[in-house]
Amino acid sequence: MTTAGTLYLVPGPLDFGCAEPVPLAEVLPMGTIRTAARLTHWIAENAKTTRAYLKRVDAIAPLALPLQAQQIAELPHAVHKKGDHGKTPAFDPRTLLAPALMGHDIGLISEAGMPAIADPGSSVVRAAHDMGLPVVPLVGPVSLLLALAASGLNGQNFAFSGYLPQDAAARATAIKQLETLALKSGQAQIVIETPYRNAALLAALIEVLHPNTRLAVSSGLTLPQARTRSQSVKAWREGEACEVGGLPAVFAIGR
Amino acid sequence: MTTAGTLYLVPGPLDFGCAEPVPLAEVLPMGTIRTAARLTHWIAENAKTTRAYLKRVDAIAPLALPLQAQQIAELPHAVHKKGDHGKTPAFDPRTLLAPALMGHDIGLISEAGMPAIADPGSSVVRAAHDMGLPVVPLVGPVSLLLALAASGLNGQNFAFSGYLPQDAAARATAIKQLETLALKSGQAQIVIETPYRNAALLAALIEVLHPNTRLAVSSGLTLPQARTRSQSVKAWREGEACEVGGLPAVFAIGR
Repeated sequence: MTTAGTLYLVPGPLDFGCAEPVPLAEVLPMGTIRTAARLTHWIAENAKTTRAYLKRVDAIAPLALPLQAQQIAELPHAVHKKGDHGKTPAFDPRTLLAPALMGHDIGLISEAGMPAIADPGSSVVRAAHDMGLPVVPLVGPVSLLLALAASGLNGQNFAFSGYLPQDAAARATAIKQLETLALKSGQAQIVIETPYRNAALLAALIEVLHPNTRLAVSSGLTLPQARTRSQSVKAWREGEACEVGGLPAVFAIGR
Repeated sequence: MTTAGTLYLVPGPLDFGCAEPVPLAEVLPMGTIRTAARLTHWIAENAKTTRAYLKRVDAIAPLALPLQAQQIAELPHAVHKKGDHGKTPAFDPRTLLAPALMGHDIGLISEAGMPAIADPGSSVVRAAHDMGLPVVPLVGPVSLLLALAASGLNGQNFAFSGYLPQDAAARATAIKQLETLALKSGQAQIVIETPYRNAALLAALIEVLHPNTRLAVSSGLTLPQARTRSQSVKAWREGEACEVGGLPAVFAIGR
């Protein structure tokens, strides 16, 4: 009988879409790079991004198979970005995991950071457990927790709730709800936004939150231009403007 | 005028207290190791652990100053473990950050994983921002999010609430509350426990949670004996027992 393969969760660098790539070994441990080099079967958010990643891996640790011979299955578009934790019709992640039953280890990878965290993949991980496959997460950058640590907000009690509504009124209501939660319970609240809407979200946070609430913004984490600013909303209103457009950013609020 | 130093958040490996140390370069990127080697001033949960860590760093990237010459300031015991996000009487983290005003970069480090996440340090980070010091988080293992990714639970909406009460009745109530939250909102709930109480917490979770709730347990993450099991409470009740005693573990529940 063939021993079933393992599902590895393979983190990527946080420079997706950025002009200057970060040297891979600066942000990924050798254990992660070597495991990525050894794998030949992938489940990916995007096959093209995965090939670009593997090229960078190959420059440090030679790939077990040439790029063209790597098997890369893409997650269906329906589970992208909006997440795949709910029901996705007509998607059975077991199909993607079939090579593991033939003994192949499989890498699950997203466009940046940790797969299945603020990114698709959790349905694949659940299916792997249901099929009895070992699941091994590898170490790499996780922007949410780098940002939380750098914020000085409560790292013993926190929540991440993804993206806020785009509609201004609905967004203001959501911000107020998160603030109430943060102030009452002490639970730090983390949210993200797509880079081109960062400036609008930051403006809304500064406008809607109470002056004494602490607001932290991390942008470009692990990049040369990385920056975290954490201060009261009052200070945000009075201080110089913060340039967050274009770079991936994480927002956190708390007391 | 001297340029102020930077506060680096320096993650450590997750093998604290474990018999066999993990090779450092397997779990920490070279960027983190090289920065740790360059620093000479530290704020630490424990000075002895920090020296042991720096010895391991030195074997990969030579330290800028010998161990005996490193300045290591310990966080007061009052902010350990229970967190320092609330008020800690008679502790002013600005004192610890004074070397930064003389131009020294400072590393904040905890016994394992990311400082200020499920570990002390957030008061130091807040003080650094208030003093206008740059704060830079470095990449390393964060057990909470490795575990969440490996659980297959909702990575788009999750919360961490630290330790549950030790008293059995209070713990059962807290478990029920977390479960209600997880089932109603879809927000995955993460908790931790000190290793010697892991078995008791796991038994309580299996007993108290609804059979259909999914319970995931990751133990020994990044270690050779790392294991994640994620299944329904019903399956936990019927399956073979899971050995979690002695190893650091992360527990997550969701639907």
